[in-house]
Amino acid sequence: MIHFDQDYAEGAHPKILERLLETNLEQASGYGFDQYSEKARELIKESVENDAVDVHFLSAGTQTNLTVIASALRPHQGVVAAESGHIQTLETGAIEAVGHKILLLPTEEGKIQAEQVAALCEEYWNNEANIHKVQPAMLHLANPTEVGTIYSREELAALRAVTEKYKMKFFIDGARLGYGLVAETNDVTMKDMIDLTDVFYIGGTKIGALLGEAVVIKDPELKRDFRSIMKQKGALLAKGRLLGIQFETLFTNNLYFEIADYAVTQAMRIKEALIEKGVSLKYQNDTNQLFPIMTDEMVRYLAEEFKFLVMNQEDDDHHLVRICTSWGTKEENVDQLIQKIKDFN
Amino acid sequence: MIHFDQDYAEGAHPKILERLLETNLEQASGYGFDQYSEKARELIKESVENDAVDVHFLSAGTQTNLTVIASALRPHQGVVAAESGHIQTLETGAIEAVGHKILLLPTEEGKIQAEQVAALCEEYWNNEANIHKVQPAMLHLANPTEVGTIYSREELAALRAVTEKYKMKFFIDGARLGYGLVAETNDVTMKDMIDLTDVFYIGGTKIGALLGEAVVIKDPELKRDFRSIMKQKGALLAKGRLLGIQFETLFTNNLYFEIADYAVTQAMRIKEALIEKGVSLKYQNDTNQLFPIMTDEMVRYLAEEFKFLVMNQEDDDHHLVRICTSWGTKEENVDQLIQKIKDFN
Amino acid sequence: MIHFDQDYAEGAHPKILERLLETNLEQASGYGFDQYSEKARELIKESVENDAVDVHFLSAGTQTNLTVIASALRPHQGVVAAESGHIQTLETGAIEAVGHKILLLPTEEGKIQAEQVAALCEEYWNNEANIHKVQPAMLHLANPTEVGTIYSREELAALRAVTEKYKMKFFIDGARLGYGLVAETNDVTMKDMIDLTDVFYIGGTKIGALLGEAVVIKDPELKRDFRSIMKQKGALLAKGRLLGIQFETLFTNNLYFEIADYAVTQAMRIKEALIEKGVSLKYQNDTNQLFPIMTDEMVRYLAEEFKFLVMNQEDDDHHLVRICTSWGTKEENVDQLIQKIKDFN
Amino acid sequence: MIHFDQDYAEGAHPKILERLLETNLEQASGYGFDQYSEKARELIKESVENDAVDVHFLSAGTQTNLTVIASALRPHQGVVAAESGHIQTLETGAIEAVGHKILLLPTEEGKIQAEQVAALCEEYWNNEANIHKVQPAMLHLANPTEVGTIYSREELAALRAVTEKYKMKFFIDGARLGYGLVAETNDVTMKDMIDLTDVFYIGGTKIGALLGEAVVIKDPELKRDFRSIMKQKGALLAKGRLLGIQFETLFTNNLYFEIADYAVTQAMRIKEALIEKGVSLKYQNDTNQLFPIMTDEMVRYLAEEFKFLVMNQEDDDHHLVRICTSWGTKEENVDQLIQKIKDFN
Repeated sequence: MIHFDQDYAEGAHPKILERLLETNLEQASGYGFDQYSEKARELIKESVENDAVDVHFLSAGTQTNLTVIASALRPHQGVVAAESGHIQTLETGAIEAVGHKILLLPTEEGKIQAEQVAALCEEYWNNEANIHKVQPAMLHLANPTEVGTIYSREELAALRAVTEKYKMKFFIDGARLGYGLVAETNDVTMKDMIDLTDVFYIGGTKIGALLGEAVVIKDPELKRDFRSIMKQKGALLAKGRLLGIQFETLFTNNLYFEIADYAVTQAMRIKEALIEKGVSLKYQNDTNQLFPIMTDEMVRYLAEEFKFLVMNQEDDDHHLVRICTSWGTKEENVDQLIQKIKDFN
Repeated sequence: MIHFDQDYAEGAHPKILERLLETNLEQASGYGFDQYSEKARELIKESVENDAVDVHFLSAGTQTNLTVIASALRPHQGVVAAESGHIQTLETGAIEAVGHKILLLPTEEGKIQAEQVAALCEEYWNNEANIHKVQPAMLHLANPTEVGTIYSREELAALRAVTEKYKMKFFIDGARLGYGLVAETNDVTMKDMIDLTDVFYIGGTKIGALLGEAVVIKDPELKRDFRSIMKQKGALLAKGRLLGIQFETLFTNNLYFEIADYAVTQAMRIKEALIEKGVSLKYQNDTNQLFPIMTDEMVRYLAEEFKFLVMNQEDDDHHLVRICTSWGTKEENVDQLIQKIKDFN
Repeated sequence: MIHFDQDYAEGAHPKILERLLETNLEQASGYGFDQYSEKARELIKESVENDAVDVHFLSAGTQTNLTVIASALRPHQGVVAAESGHIQTLETGAIEAVGHKILLLPTEEGKIQAEQVAALCEEYWNNEANIHKVQPAMLHLANPTEVGTIYSREELAALRAVTEKYKMKFFIDGARLGYGLVAETNDVTMKDMIDLTDVFYIGGTKIGALLGEAVVIKDPELKRDFRSIMKQKGALLAKGRLLGIQFETLFTNNLYFEIADYAVTQAMRIKEALIEKGVSLKYQNDTNQLFPIMTDEMVRYLAEEFKFLVMNQEDDDHHLVRICTSWGTKEENVDQLIQKIKDFN
Repeated sequence: MIHFDQDYAEGAHPKILERLLETNLEQASGYGFDQYSEKARELIKESVENDAVDVHFLSAGTQTNLTVIASALRPHQGVVAAESGHIQTLETGAIEAVGHKILLLPTEEGKIQAEQVAALCEEYWNNEANIHKVQPAMLHLANPTEVGTIYSREELAALRAVTEKYKMKFFIDGARLGYGLVAETNDVTMKDMIDLTDVFYIGGTKIGALLGEAVVIKDPELKRDFRSIMKQKGALLAKGRLLGIQFETLFTNNLYFEIADYAVTQAMRIKEALIEKGVSLKYQNDTNQLFPIMTDEMVRYLAEEFKFLVMNQEDDDHHLVRICTSWGTKEENVDQLIQKIKDFN
């Protein structure tokens, strides 16, 4: 059975394992003060073209979301997010468990629009009785979104203007950031990611690392004591080197984006095959996740050889399906899947 | 500079890296449902000679402590721990951050005695006005303790009797468990660890792994939905295989205890050299951590070549020092340190 | 200006003040162990015809909601509630602040239906990947609802069956309970309120008391240590007598329901006048809150003499309005309002 | 049986009840926006001679402590307090339940000294590894302390200097403030209370009110959105008038201090009788609480007619006892107690 159900089915990109081996017996300080983390920080600062940011390495997406959000908000403040957002739907109440309400916005294709955020803020700030309401104090969104769509530079700039107007922190979850930045329709750069936000993170787990998310912080308030809060939330590894080495490797010679590019190329090949076959896609995107609406017959047929995610029922005989690629997706397996799609009738 | 300041200065035991390489391209399910985690669970169940336990893999000690404690307690309940305990002194308020007070007991040599716990419980349960007090509902201790001492089977059994009497959960933090179980004076087995508790964890990070702690749960209430709480606390890795592979390796052919044994042997060699030199040790133990009280002159002298932890000032010209060994400690470096100690005058 | 905007515009029912005066110099134990609270508990047990319940007195609705919910849930569990529910919309994130997500159900006329709860539970319990989801473990609803509608005995029984099936606690917020139980269309008794739930509360603040909500608990798990959790949440008054005396008075000679009945009678008089005038009501109810949809002209006209709550804009020239009555509403003021309505043209 | 065990045995000072009656049918806005609260705020501003402070009314001490502390701290920050402090010993973990560790200082006679706070801060800020430690960010103390002792102006000024140096908020719990300010040895004024702190509260419950604590805030950060946090913590009463009316009454014509003065005068009479009888007092103070160390025989003898708090056993035949007076203590009952003490042999 070949996995197309997720982008974390394999271990790490071989170059990462190589580097782990190479450095294994070198001694290093703990808790992120090692030489590899230091180097990785430098490389990421170069990547975002900003030497003044702070960079920290955490282990996983939920952990990163809850740590950043907990560090930013006072008790009565909440985080604005998409109804379809990961923090709302798939993190077992991690944000509420650190004390904060998620203020929800409905979305089309997973994306939040600046006007929505502005309207929600207007309603709060113009409400005389708002002491009974949670104060919107942070905006959280994922780029790419959970359904693989991406934000344009213009959209992010508009959101930025709103968050500045209402003194909210702007936080982008980049669990799959690389896949978004290499997309054909993308016009956002790494520099934009920090220029237009207060904090964002670069996902490693789903783009070639064993584990690891790199948080990049520009906002001075968020910078303050961030490591203490990481420690408190269980997010500080004794062997921080494990994360440092991986991000050092990913940001050396552009490996991170090469990996992303490879995966997206494979996804686009599958997309083309699906479209040729007349399968429609629920969400329009050119990243590493595809969301075809398939007949149940086709689902059963492909499931003979491939593993993918069968999601909601769309109508009497169709289901929504998720197909993912990653650095570890083999070209020949994609060929095989494409052939299988072509052969369906 | 040679590190004796910590037991996490190097990467992972070479066999772990080997196994990571070997399995790297195999596809696996996420979130702990992979084949390696499954195998590791089986091996750990064998090790504790109990097939009915649940085993989960987390990333770090603080994370494990906060997740287990949060899963066990209602809001008004607290966890009894040593004043010198890690959760009290070195976890940035992680337990309080999930809502619970730590009820402190003073200790000698880092160890909690059954009578202390009994006295604290008596005071609570016999107090008519105890609605104003935090209810002792869990006992947390580390074996070995933070100062390297270990509990005897008899001591653990006495603590068990008290926790049963007062319906408290008993939780042992085994961040350095292996180093304790191989100590010459130890009479506790892996089987005892679960027979005498409700839940304990086996530390990987400090005994050969890149990261990882294996929680072993016997108590049915604690078993229920533990993975959900892991997810909520950011403790569930997408690539759970990373933890599974490591514990599978550590519990194959007794590697975990071999590693521990090697490190403790090296520590005992250093201990002997210190004693011969007339240096006294603050805490009596035979695990991988030594706590000599050194003259400041000796501290400066050794610090020329070696890195170790200089702790509290003991008197006008003495400091308490921590020296650690691990799987990665090289025999020749120990030789060198011993020679240096001998040469001091 | 005459207040019809809320049901807490005046102090307390005169009998309560009288009794406060009468008992003022009597000495009593603190923290709810006084003789008045004891008597009030007995009266409430009689009222629900159940001697085995526990009764506790708290100060306010939000406080009561957060204390009961915090006492009931483990970290990964959430409370199911209406999108229009008070805990979701008007409590500044109090439930999230004690760590729990609110799982939302859309409602018509503010009421949750059994099938909705069942569907949400089915989705959770049949989802293999539900470790990423918050577990529905309690149902919270208000009777009367926030828009004045009431549940029938049959509806509550159906909800009870669902909560039993899915092992959820069932909690009814009765901030305005009295106004519901005296409604003409009501068929629910005080006995039903506890027979069909695990815990509910009887609102005092809005029905004649200075402050106070009486929590009635049937479920043994919720009973355990509830006072400890009250204390922790700041909900235990040193002079618990203040609450005891009020509920003793309210439950002597049926005063609580007399008060409610008076207020509802006045509301129904206003309702009739509105209907006669051709004003339509957004929510159909026969409790003490009315929600007419008024032309903006009428709003301005009535606002010359009366204070009421102007809520959402309904269309270009209509707004939703809330009109409330209480024990303190004077009959002559109602006459005056009715006349004013009649005179509008 | 006559109560000397607490200062909350009776209802409210008669003038408060009188005023409640007088205003009962007047209509007022809810949630603290009523005319009485407004007036009470003005009176308190006059009392502290500072027009720029914010004043809020809460219901109880634990509630006030947890609300202020939660509003002030980020997740990794803690509050420094006395080991004997109320928040540590008698609030069922309320502070931990809002996420914060209490950093404990041992005390003599219940009082914290500036050097202790400075030493604790030095240790934190000079510790390179302080990311593993909770950051001291607020100082909390009670004046009078839990054992009735009071701080001098000089002591508070020294503590203020330390909190300013380390950028900590300084918060005084004045649950029994009045009894301290009228003490013969006191040199602190109401103006000092805010000049030397960031926030403090004036206890009403124990000095004549039915319930109520008035928080006075000077610090701009703490002022921001304090009412939102009150609401979230369940501390905002719909009928805020109940608190406003009481503080309006207490701060009209100096009633608050008259009440305190009366109670302290009675306590001093009892103190004199005890000293004459040769009974020693554990804590030296001249406020409304006395802590005599009595022979068990004397305890039994007095307990025939009087109720007081029997605390710790001091030696084989002595116990520590607490005797309290309040506004409600009758002069004739004090006479009776004094006679009884005299008659003991």
